Amino acid sequence: MSTDTPPAPDEAARSDLESRIEELETELSDLRTEVETGPKKMVIIATKGTLDMAYPPLILASTAAAFGYDVTVFHTFWGLEILHEEHSTDLKLSSVGNPNMPMPNAVAALPGMDAVTTKMMRKRIADNEVASVEELVQTSLDTGVDLQACQMTIELLGYDDEDFYDGVTTGVGAASAFQEMVEADIQLLV
Amino acid sequence: MSTDTPPAPDEAARSDLESRIEELETELSDLRTEVETGPKKMVIIATKGTLDMAYPPLILASTAAAFGYDVTVFHTFWGLEILHEEHSTDLKLSSVGNPNMPMPNAVAALPGMDAVTTKMMRKRIADNEVASVEELVQTSLDTGVDLQACQMTIELLGYDDEDFYDGVTTGVGAASAFQEMVEADIQLLV
Amino acid sequence: MSTDTPPAPDEAARSDLESRIEELETELSDLRTEVETGPKKMVIIATKGTLDMAYPPLILASTAAAFGYDVTVFHTFWGLEILHEEHSTDLKLSSVGNPNMPMPNAVAALPGMDAVTTKMMRKRIADNEVASVEELVQTSLDTGVDLQACQMTIELLGYDDEDFYDGVTTGVGAASAFQEMVEADIQLLV
Repeated sequence: MSTDTPPAPDEAARSDLESRIEELETELSDLRTEVETGPKKMVIIATKGTLDMAYPPLILASTAAAFGYDVTVFHTFWGLEILHEEHSTDLKLSSVGNPNMPMPNAVAALPGMDAVTTKMMRKRIADNEVASVEELVQTSLDTGVDLQACQMTIELLGYDDEDFYDGVTTGVGAASAFQEMVEADIQLLV
Repeated sequence: MSTDTPPAPDEAARSDLESRIEELETELSDLRTEVETGPKKMVIIATKGTLDMAYPPLILASTAAAFGYDVTVFHTFWGLEILHEEHSTDLKLSSVGNPNMPMPNAVAALPGMDAVTTKMMRKRIADNEVASVEELVQTSLDTGVDLQACQMTIELLGYDDEDFYDGVTTGVGAASAFQEMVEADIQLLV
Repeated sequence: MSTDTPPAPDEAARSDLESRIEELETELSDLRTEVETGPKKMVIIATKGTLDMAYPPLILASTAAAFGYDVTVFHTFWGLEILHEEHSTDLKLSSVGNPNMPMPNAVAALPGMDAVTTKMMRKRIADNEVASVEELVQTSLDTGVDLQACQMTIELLGYDDEDFYDGVTTGVGAASAFQEMVEADIQLLV
């Protein structure tokens, strides 16, 4: 029988069913992989600009990038200070209103006391070989983390595109940040 | 052959397999859509009551609603102030203990200084045509966002149902907020 | 025809297709359950150590555990104070720099005023039969919540393993916390 001869009706029907089953098996396996691994994308909204609260978004972002995650950090409100090249090297820990600092408020409110506690914390950070904020910003950019500066906040605080580290994304807002969150499997707000 | 005649055994078996395959194809396609689009539900836990931290939950909630998301914001602890009709128009930015405000603490602690920095921020917000907190609460309610006031906090702070904006949900707690989070694909805490 | 007789070629082929379809039906149903129920795992990053901000992670963690969730709370930066046996019973609310406390800053900055407002809040908490922080830590541990103390922060603040409640996990860092977040369906940062 030549290969050009059409198959018997029965055989054709079975072969059709078989190829549909094969396709289903492949698609189901793909979907299972997608469900189990997730989209491997993380979005962090960073709203704080103190020395202590600059660390959580930067540490989590660079950790996730090291695990192969696609990471976006959207910096809004005080979080913008982390991306401001000049300000980021001078973020402060506040002792006043920070009950975790062992200092009474009346002493803490004296001029210069913020500088003292911040200096103490910076020394501890350096002594423990923890990276500085500037180093973590650079590591994040180097490993492909998308550090975004909220345009509304840039205008509200009167900043300029040149104020930020090279590689920082500007011109973005809440709508694009939200759309990135929709695609992500981990979303956090600091 | 009349249409009432039962099909030959072979044909019946094939037709049965075929319909099971068709059903699998439909179900798999539905599940894929569900996995890829997610439940389109966001839950935000709002715990802060300062002028600056009232914005992130309200902006994200109204943005998500504009994208067709089902949104719940559960206001607990100081976050309750955002829903308190009288207090919400008078939320304060603190200059003391806020290292992002360019003012030494000894000056900032003087009576009235919180009012000064808050007034400065309100002016900047208006100058930049950013909506007020009251406007964002109203927009959120108008677009179907479920703004919830934590019952435990209402009792802790001695508030009354009438203190809140019309349309605010009361009588809810951590258990119902958690169950909403389970159904959501985006969960954030501010 | 004896049962040992192999089936006719047609029958064998149909039976093969049938068993593949059955397998697909089972797998699809399992995957649907997995998609719809999710992994039932929640991870909270706790970064704050004030009396007010100790509550959200502990209340959400114990609520989730009551609903059968597998819960991890990773305590880092000031969040470590919640797990510090001695400090946790003495967490403070700050009145200075906390615009939700009805007290002008110049009064609030007087020595002892933090203690006054904290005492007021503790009384309200007790009057409203809200559990204390120590009680919530114990409930969380008793219901199987994994309370983790960030090793980098332990070293930064000069603490010791013995300072923490029995049952607290030490020796963990951002990398393991991130991996737990990947497996979870709810991730929050306080």
